[in-house]
Amino acid sequence: MELAIALDSRSSLPLHRQLYDELRRAILSGRLVPRQQLPSSRFLAKSLGISRTTVTQAYEQLLSEGYLDTVVGAGTFVCDQLPEDLLFSQAIAPSPPHPEPETIQLSAYGERLARLETTLQPELQTEISFRYGRPAFDQFPVQLWQKLLSRHCRHDTRWLDYSTDFQGYEPLRQAIARYLCRSRAVQCTSEQILITNGTQQALDLIMRLLINPGEGIALEEPGYLSARRIFLSHGAQLFPISVDRSGLIVSDLIQYSRQQVKLVYVTPSHQFPTGAILSLPRRLELLAWAHQTGALILEDDYDSEYRYGDRPIPALQGLDSQAAVLYMGSFSKVLFPALRIGYLVLSPPLVPLFARAKWLCDRHLPVLDQQVLASFIDEGYLERHLRKMRLVYDQRRQALVQVLQATFGEQVSIVGERAGLHLMVRFQTSLSDQAIIQRAAEQGVGLMSAQGQYLQPTRSGEFIFGYSELTVEQIKSGIQRLAQIGLSNQ
Amino acid sequence: MELAIALDSRSSLPLHRQLYDELRRAILSGRLVPRQQLPSSRFLAKSLGISRTTVTQAYEQLLSEGYLDTVVGAGTFVCDQLPEDLLFSQAIAPSPPHPEPETIQLSAYGERLARLETTLQPELQTEISFRYGRPAFDQFPVQLWQKLLSRHCRHDTRWLDYSTDFQGYEPLRQAIARYLCRSRAVQCTSEQILITNGTQQALDLIMRLLINPGEGIALEEPGYLSARRIFLSHGAQLFPISVDRSGLIVSDLIQYSRQQVKLVYVTPSHQFPTGAILSLPRRLELLAWAHQTGALILEDDYDSEYRYGDRPIPALQGLDSQAAVLYMGSFSKVLFPALRIGYLVLSPPLVPLFARAKWLCDRHLPVLDQQVLASFIDEGYLERHLRKMRLVYDQRRQALVQVLQATFGEQVSIVGERAGLHLMVRFQTSLSDQAIIQRAAEQGVGLMSAQGQYLQPTRSGEFIFGYSELTVEQIKSGIQRLAQIGLSNQ
Repeated sequence: MELAIALDSRSSLPLHRQLYDELRRAILSGRLVPRQQLPSSRFLAKSLGISRTTVTQAYEQLLSEGYLDTVVGAGTFVCDQLPEDLLFSQAIAPSPPHPEPETIQLSAYGERLARLETTLQPELQTEISFRYGRPAFDQFPVQLWQKLLSRHCRHDTRWLDYSTDFQGYEPLRQAIARYLCRSRAVQCTSEQILITNGTQQALDLIMRLLINPGEGIALEEPGYLSARRIFLSHGAQLFPISVDRSGLIVSDLIQYSRQQVKLVYVTPSHQFPTGAILSLPRRLELLAWAHQTGALILEDDYDSEYRYGDRPIPALQGLDSQAAVLYMGSFSKVLFPALRIGYLVLSPPLVPLFARAKWLCDRHLPVLDQQVLASFIDEGYLERHLRKMRLVYDQRRQALVQVLQATFGEQVSIVGERAGLHLMVRFQTSLSDQAIIQRAAEQGVGLMSAQGQYLQPTRSGEFIFGYSELTVEQIKSGIQRLAQIGLSNQ
Repeated sequence: MELAIALDSRSSLPLHRQLYDELRRAILSGRLVPRQQLPSSRFLAKSLGISRTTVTQAYEQLLSEGYLDTVVGAGTFVCDQLPEDLLFSQAIAPSPPHPEPETIQLSAYGERLARLETTLQPELQTEISFRYGRPAFDQFPVQLWQKLLSRHCRHDTRWLDYSTDFQGYEPLRQAIARYLCRSRAVQCTSEQILITNGTQQALDLIMRLLINPGEGIALEEPGYLSARRIFLSHGAQLFPISVDRSGLIVSDLIQYSRQQVKLVYVTPSHQFPTGAILSLPRRLELLAWAHQTGALILEDDYDSEYRYGDRPIPALQGLDSQAAVLYMGSFSKVLFPALRIGYLVLSPPLVPLFARAKWLCDRHLPVLDQQVLASFIDEGYLERHLRKMRLVYDQRRQALVQVLQATFGEQVSIVGERAGLHLMVRFQTSLSDQAIIQRAAEQGVGLMSAQGQYLQPTRSGEFIFGYSELTVEQIKSGIQRLAQIGLSNQ
């Protein structure tokens, strides 16, 4: 076979590209017809005076684009149907329509999630917002953090590579273990720690690995809405247990067996949202129940770092003698939420399974952030920051309590102010929460009702007041504006 | 009731703490006995000449620690059983043992995961390792990255707060959408992008939301082991489809209906591990099958950035007219794996569900990293880095091919060298892969067998040769050492 092919060695186009263009043109123009055999690459190379590699490269490209085909032992041929035909026929011959994505069949998990009443909506912007769940960003030592980032960036390139610390960066786990032993009387070594993307992922992993749809979870009522959503997304059956000023009413839990309740979720340091601190007798009672029934306790040690005036009570995990407690925490409130670093403290036999799950789900956290946080803890900055922040928050907390009492007197009762970054306020009012939020917003004040945190319908007038992000002046101004909305008037 | 309580106003201890200590001592010494009523806080405050808040604080602490109890309408009493008794009785009275964590009943997912043959083990350390899956760390612009980190750190404090971009940082999604349109002919806007913790989380989310246990997934054979493990962890039924030099043999897939195969997972740009590039006719055939059956295509556009010599073929996603394709990619090979940033391109109706799942599972990625990456792309550094790296890798690739051919001649065949960061090498040998790895390690050379990537048993002698981390000199030296191990000898 003869092929008239013009290659220009002075062209800026590489030879294989010129050959590809020439052959493709020959095929599209019909000079080379379907099923026609091409010369072998060795033969064509020789006849054109170019290297065989050049020919192979051009052939490969034409093969992968569908102009040529090879038959083993027989050679290379022009395809029956050319890519242009395929693309063209695609465009004009409508296939039966692909199912609309709405009709894509979801998994059972996907179905449950689609039914959950979570709407992802940015919160209302107001001049003074008593929102909760955020630390004071203006107090964060940004310069120091940046210095640590730069230092680790330059130190070596290990922070670029996959980590082989499958439970999370080992020095960080050591730093966390020491910190938890010191400040929370948690009994653990770094070997028991799994670093997670915040407590959110810790909750999700526990559900994935331990809870089947239909299994029972006891939880505080009212309780942390985000946790409840995760439980529901996994199809768990929920057993709400009421909360009083000493936290979870454990005697209400004791009626349930392990067959009914596989796991109980508690926030003992500063119950969310009431702020109650689980008393020591209740803690011991809860542990005794778990030991007796074989149920697990999931201790979310939320807000344990901020305790005003009195001494912290040791974590359940540290009081537990029988590995019934899964302990979790995060640096979202202590440092900053967008860091997305949390941790789980597991009993040793559970560690390999959780590490495997974390590795399979998303490998590990960015290594650089873990290195910086480890240094931040080890070099004493964390505890220094906490000491400073306790004073700041205590001042803000006191201002809020005082101005609330001075402004609303008997019309208000305050709970949960002994710890954490928010308190809960109950107004005597006949207004609906929605009306109060609306009127407050008109005054430039953002309020958050506690109703969403209840599983069962509840009375109105309960609000969660975060004070961590507001200065004393903002707190005073906010409450004074609130006095204008006429809580007692319809 | 009279209580002799000594408070010292000059002490450094706050009054409420002194009062707490005094009362606790009175209880433990028996001056206050179980069930004894305490004075009201109002009365005690008056009698001691201190504020009522001070008394309340001390009472609260004693209440939460279990020394006191309140009876509504009756008052505050010393508890029957004191915390010290409780702690002591805990220690001496052994409860029935808590079930060993081995016997903790796992979820169905947990059970499947426990059965998976994943062992998390750091790889063997050798002097010259032909491992794959990592970029060249010494070529990464560390200084530039550090500068961008510092710039964003100082710019404002938004990077500290929770993000309200539920799909990931909006400017990053825009940058990725533009990049994908430009370089991969992907048709999408930033609204269709979900930022994930690498492709690993993208795969996991797709499984969670779309696949129930027992549903069918077709995948390349051989194929990406990590993806297969995720499919298996979700209980999917696997349909391995063979791969030839044009990628997935789509005609083998066509026998299956949507009832059998709900989703097909492909790596069309550089099939893992064979390196085949899915030809255009095959792409169109695959899309036609998906449109006809209603099955979904999961396009993992792995290694699409590194293509040597010839022109890239457009992504399946861009050729698809009916939203049958879920497209995913990551910056792990392009920048660095420990960044943990990947993305999913979804059809618009699927976006809210995926965003909700991501938010519920772990909120979002660290904001600072997303800001830095957005700047890195927008300011042209990504494409500059890619241009540089293509030259570096091309040189390493050519060196590896040449020295392999020069050293092993007819004994070796090489596939998949037209793209990516590795190639696949088939040795004619009677040695087992294990023996080859062992002998290579004795020469200081790390090799990786392809066997693990096959679902079904396969012949030995196939190895994946990564070259991205090795200099030309290291590559030459590594292959020369390999020549010493006697591949043809038993």
